[in-house]
Amino acid sequence: MRDLADTSRRSLGVTFREDGRAVVRLWAPTAKSVSLKLKHGTRSLLKQEHGFWELVTADMKPGDAYQFLLDEKLLPDPASLSQPDGVHGPSQAIDIADFGWTDTEWANPNLADYILYELHVGTFTDTGTFDAVITKLPHLKSLGITALEIMPVSQFPGDRNWGYDGVFPFAVHHCYGGARGLQRLVDACHRHGLAVVLDVVYNHVGPEGNYLREFGPYFTKKYNTPWGDAINFDDAGCDGVRYFFIENALMWLRDFHIDALRLDAVHAIRDFSPVHILEDIRRYTTSLICEAWRRHYLLVELDLNDTRFIHPARKGGYGMDGQWIDEFHHALRVTTGQARTGYYEDFDGVGHLAKAYRDAYVYDGQYSTHRQKYFGVKADGCAGEKFVVFSQNHDQVGNRMMGERTSTLVSFELLKVMAGAVLLSPYLPLLFMGEEYGETNPFLYFVHHGDAALIEAVRRGRRAEFASFQSEGEAPDPQAQETFLRSRLQWSLLENERHHVLFAFYQELIVLRKSHNALRYLNRTTLDATANEAGQTLL
Amino acid sequence: MRDLADTSRRSLGVTFREDGRAVVRLWAPTAKSVSLKLKHGTRSLLKQEHGFWELVTADMKPGDAYQFLLDEKLLPDPASLSQPDGVHGPSQAIDIADFGWTDTEWANPNLADYILYELHVGTFTDTGTFDAVITKLPHLKSLGITALEIMPVSQFPGDRNWGYDGVFPFAVHHCYGGARGLQRLVDACHRHGLAVVLDVVYNHVGPEGNYLREFGPYFTKKYNTPWGDAINFDDAGCDGVRYFFIENALMWLRDFHIDALRLDAVHAIRDFSPVHILEDIRRYTTSLICEAWRRHYLLVELDLNDTRFIHPARKGGYGMDGQWIDEFHHALRVTTGQARTGYYEDFDGVGHLAKAYRDAYVYDGQYSTHRQKYFGVKADGCAGEKFVVFSQNHDQVGNRMMGERTSTLVSFELLKVMAGAVLLSPYLPLLFMGEEYGETNPFLYFVHHGDAALIEAVRRGRRAEFASFQSEGEAPDPQAQETFLRSRLQWSLLENERHHVLFAFYQELIVLRKSHNALRYLNRTTLDATANEAGQTLL
Repeated sequence: MRDLADTSRRSLGVTFREDGRAVVRLWAPTAKSVSLKLKHGTRSLLKQEHGFWELVTADMKPGDAYQFLLDEKLLPDPASLSQPDGVHGPSQAIDIADFGWTDTEWANPNLADYILYELHVGTFTDTGTFDAVITKLPHLKSLGITALEIMPVSQFPGDRNWGYDGVFPFAVHHCYGGARGLQRLVDACHRHGLAVVLDVVYNHVGPEGNYLREFGPYFTKKYNTPWGDAINFDDAGCDGVRYFFIENALMWLRDFHIDALRLDAVHAIRDFSPVHILEDIRRYTTSLICEAWRRHYLLVELDLNDTRFIHPARKGGYGMDGQWIDEFHHALRVTTGQARTGYYEDFDGVGHLAKAYRDAYVYDGQYSTHRQKYFGVKADGCAGEKFVVFSQNHDQVGNRMMGERTSTLVSFELLKVMAGAVLLSPYLPLLFMGEEYGETNPFLYFVHHGDAALIEAVRRGRRAEFASFQSEGEAPDPQAQETFLRSRLQWSLLENERHHVLFAFYQELIVLRKSHNALRYLNRTTLDATANEAGQTLL
Repeated sequence: MRDLADTSRRSLGVTFREDGRAVVRLWAPTAKSVSLKLKHGTRSLLKQEHGFWELVTADMKPGDAYQFLLDEKLLPDPASLSQPDGVHGPSQAIDIADFGWTDTEWANPNLADYILYELHVGTFTDTGTFDAVITKLPHLKSLGITALEIMPVSQFPGDRNWGYDGVFPFAVHHCYGGARGLQRLVDACHRHGLAVVLDVVYNHVGPEGNYLREFGPYFTKKYNTPWGDAINFDDAGCDGVRYFFIENALMWLRDFHIDALRLDAVHAIRDFSPVHILEDIRRYTTSLICEAWRRHYLLVELDLNDTRFIHPARKGGYGMDGQWIDEFHHALRVTTGQARTGYYEDFDGVGHLAKAYRDAYVYDGQYSTHRQKYFGVKADGCAGEKFVVFSQNHDQVGNRMMGERTSTLVSFELLKVMAGAVLLSPYLPLLFMGEEYGETNPFLYFVHHGDAALIEAVRRGRRAEFASFQSEGEAPDPQAQETFLRSRLQWSLLENERHHVLFAFYQELIVLRKSHNALRYLNRTTLDATANEAGQTLL
């Protein structure tokens, strides 16, 4: 189990063999009996080693609904690929291997050439589907970005969610177009010469529709997280859990041709194993790369300024290819007028922005007032392409009470300055959807839960979070459909001259970045950033 | 604060300067006011940076009792050096710098030459003091061991305790003879050519008399431990806590001339900082070594088979000099007849013992039934001197319901085999006090709490732990003085021929180890261990 012998195919959930039979495989180490419930009758699974249960059957076809009967309890498949009736409904067997890929000529570019564009499928278009995203690819291509970064798509409760409440890590959300829809989008991106980065969440599972704990020790009480019990990566029974997430990472890369993963908030993964789960994901990904002759990157969101995550294994690191780094954003925002409240209190503006340009980490050993501790280590020897920077992203916009995008907070001129600051940085730039033409709609926090108590808890939590901002109004109701609708992009704005000018400016900057060797080279050592504190300028 | 500028002197608690004045320094980051309460009046401390409070006063002399008045609350000093009236009483100012050391000629031997002897001060002699230990040094010297390992001596509640319930990490337990007594013992050991290893506990604080949380964020709710909230090594406010324990490590090495620390159960230290607290302790210890031109070693008790702890920093490791390794013990015990219950279920006997000789870690990637997970990494490239092995120790004896030593469990011949197995191993051997002459008294679990509810909880816990052994009798009452008294060594046994023969055998083995180059060299690669499973023999 530790050494997945075969990275070439799925080995959890339902997989269709070439002879048309379905292989059904489930990890349920403490179950006394497991059977598969189909529309017509049930079939018993046989217990294998290490808590796995298996069945090969000719009685199941793509499209069939199924459930597991676990010691008399009817449950969906933890490794379900499709949940057409939502998180509480039965699973649906589908065949993700029979998609007609047309991207055989595609080659994932060098990571240093990535110019990222983060988008949320549900609000990117009015339709909110993968197919609708495809219609916008010519726009993105003309903008000049090279990689789409898609916010999490795993099945979440209800129809609208940022994606971080996903509870079926293997199932592509049904409303977005499911697995087939995502495959069509990736294939189209590759046809347009765009790489695809997928945001995946391995640090917690959403609060509604999480049936994982019925199947095994997916969680541990060793650690506490903001979202309850931590996922069990190092406690008794952890191997099946580690395997589950490793399989998940491999599936996206192999079966969906995803070019890179963006692993959400890996600082919240609690793992004291000698081999960290990220190292394991690195190892299996490397095997896959060698076998399939296709490159893939592993990027992490990391709030730790800890090079252990991005150092290679020979230096005792986890070998991630790169990390998101919020500090550049914070320093840039304070430089351009953001009040020093909350986490911004640690940032002094242009001095820290210069440090972000020079050293990647602003805090690399200094005392952080906000964190109340000395923070970070030096990022010496880490190339620029190891860091993803931005002037806004879903979190930085959406975690404001009113979800204001930068376009509604600063002057037009300053928008251009901020675009330049990001796109001409010695790091990998990331834009947030709509930023390129100054979208004015907010990006608000929205959910669509089915559980009344949970809805109320989320509402209360949101209100409490912004209690000190009451003078500015009340936080919009996260559960309201209106909140979701207000967060959609207004593509018609592009027809407006002012917005078009901004778009053209972004295009120019990207052309400049691509054509100028000094900018493409991403070498912090050849760049010198000097802050003029008095004039608040940066040379 | 992060960079202790000065490893040359104590900078917490009360320290007497050469001019006789007392420097008083306390970390109390959230306190509004702090004063020092002496017998005659109080003196205010002045707030400094980073939550420290300071006072220099001529009104305090060695021997004086004192307390801190923290926002009107009267408390002992967290960095107290002496607690003559126990854990709930006032602290006592003492001067640990004015001891007349006579060990200027002493040089800590190479770690590879360590032959360790673990002792518990309270039960080693009838008197139970450091001075009484000194009277036994000729015996230990004649045995041939080269290093005394002293179980924890920090002030614990009551008069009897293994030491792991200590609550004043800087105060040497009063009943043992206090700081001065320990200094006398170390000085005497060095005179006898013996190194001293001190067991220190940085993974938890005892359940009675812990006033630390009154002073600052010493604990965090991020992690759960078997002993409640974890010590805060990486959460908000952690720097003062890290500093506290770094200072503690430095104090033993510098002011007590301790040659090596044995850090208890470091697997239970929860620290996700980029620089682990053990790395920090390593760094400061290395500075101290360079400044004082005296060698010190850092050994850890580790239940993880994770080379990260013993690898040097350049390999991403924490740089510990060595680790205790229980697996050798478990494999040896099963080989010599121990039933495969509890954690012994993972060990098959002679095959695993051969693996322990060859690879140090028995589990270096295999599935562990007891832990319910794949466990360990390979210890390739780690020298034999990185591992401390034993056929018994305080835990392995005392965690049996009846605390039986090996001498009462196996035949006389087998005792000799086990002695040979340990003393001729390519690792650092450790003996447990009394083992060398086959002490027959048990080493039981004992405490001496003052809190009735806690006493009952400990009793209940102990009974529950051994519920399945009820047919063999009832677990002795941990709180009873009798339980402690029954655990003392009976030195008169040495006069008995059978016991003397065993002692002479240990002496011979140690002579053999010291004189034979192949045994001194500690190289696992030149040793070949082959198990003959059928005959249960090892070549």
